[in-house]
Amino acid sequence: MIPPDTHLEIGSLLFEGLDQIDLTGPFEVLSRIPNSTYRIYGKTAEPVRDMKGLRLTPDAALADAPHLDVLHMPGGFGQEALMEDEAVLGWIREQAAGAQSVFSVCTGALLCGAAGLLQGRRATTHWASFHLLAFFGAIPVNERVVVDRNWVFAAGVTAGIDGALRLAAELRGVAAAQTIQLHMVYAPEPPFNSGTPETAPPAILAEARQEVQRMTTQREATAQRIATRLGILVADSAAG
Amino acid sequence: MIPPDTHLEIGSLLFEGLDQIDLTGPFEVLSRIPNSTYRIYGKTAEPVRDMKGLRLTPDAALADAPHLDVLHMPGGFGQEALMEDEAVLGWIREQAAGAQSVFSVCTGALLCGAAGLLQGRRATTHWASFHLLAFFGAIPVNERVVVDRNWVFAAGVTAGIDGALRLAAELRGVAAAQTIQLHMVYAPEPPFNSGTPETAPPAILAEARQEVQRMTTQREATAQRIATRLGILVADSAAG
Repeated sequence: MIPPDTHLEIGSLLFEGLDQIDLTGPFEVLSRIPNSTYRIYGKTAEPVRDMKGLRLTPDAALADAPHLDVLHMPGGFGQEALMEDEAVLGWIREQAAGAQSVFSVCTGALLCGAAGLLQGRRATTHWASFHLLAFFGAIPVNERVVVDRNWVFAAGVTAGIDGALRLAAELRGVAAAQTIQLHMVYAPEPPFNSGTPETAPPAILAEARQEVQRMTTQREATAQRIATRLGILVADSAAG
Repeated sequence: MIPPDTHLEIGSLLFEGLDQIDLTGPFEVLSRIPNSTYRIYGKTAEPVRDMKGLRLTPDAALADAPHLDVLHMPGGFGQEALMEDEAVLGWIREQAAGAQSVFSVCTGALLCGAAGLLQGRRATTHWASFHLLAFFGAIPVNERVVVDRNWVFAAGVTAGIDGALRLAAELRGVAAAQTIQLHMVYAPEPPFNSGTPETAPPAILAEARQEVQRMTTQREATAQRIATRLGILVADSAAG
């Protein structure tokens, strides 16, 4: 827990083609952290569209971001286009180096990996990309939220809400996180039990894997290139 | 369930000062309903800000919306400014009359009430406004998701995700909803048990009530005026 009188600068990266709830789920929590400023940063300050077309506008461009105490990295298909974008990766590297906490949601973890920040770190990501963590030298942990020292990883998409509440508690204590949870009325009652590969009906899982197959194949090739660049040896089981 | 080959026009109302996750939570589901078009409509097509400053941009203005098959009404403090806005209320009334389904999240229910649509209907809303449902002639039901014929009501804020999955199942069947749930990795694990007035620590609930007291008082006065206009007699227990 950080002293309550220490002001926190919290920032999210916003990019074209993100999965919007990777950002907007945590937004609900991060925008309510006591004694903090929360802003959203894009490559430019222009609006972008999420995977399904939601238009979101950054508060400022990356170059205008202050030193961040908390860096939040969402994911989504659009992450793939940034995996070799040195301007963005450099910004992530620099902000992460100075941050008290880094919070990765979904395939935001792959961006952190491409920035070289996951080596030796326990991490998680979306189930469809979970096998790629090894390419970045991470230690994959199949849990919804993984805390490794000052990093918090949330698995896929809506896991960002759970991760953000964990982060809020790390930053400002349990009572602050509970207050935010009450405001959000976060007492979920999923009407079905189909939220993970382990619980979804097999036919639905197979179809979902098929739907993302092309993106997964592309991500595998990118991860392989980055592993080579970072000098990471990947066991055949992961690479296969 | 609607025949799968019937195309659905789905629309959300976006307004200044909404609670963004009332829209962005359901967005994740509504944007993935098979054989549908999903768009967001504002009083104008200009960007608005949510309660905490997130900039969101409508796809089009209300006047340019087609006949909607599914109408989604989010809530948030900004709902209060629309409670006597006849242009918006008229649009809600007209769209709801022609819709297959109406989906209310949080204090979106109060807007539906102001439009005269809740009389005799089982409904729910955010805990801080729950006592106001009676002013609109609704039958208050303290559940997270309430389905009344072709209406789905979600209680506060994140309940919109659960409600949207219920709605998806009503529209396109359980398998379609399960597929969306897997994509969203919606297998929540709240780190604390503080999401409802019944479960939050009493001190945290008292503080949260205090924080929204001014808004609640204003909403009570508005609800009273609207009850009078609609000719609804409110029992003393609710009015007090």
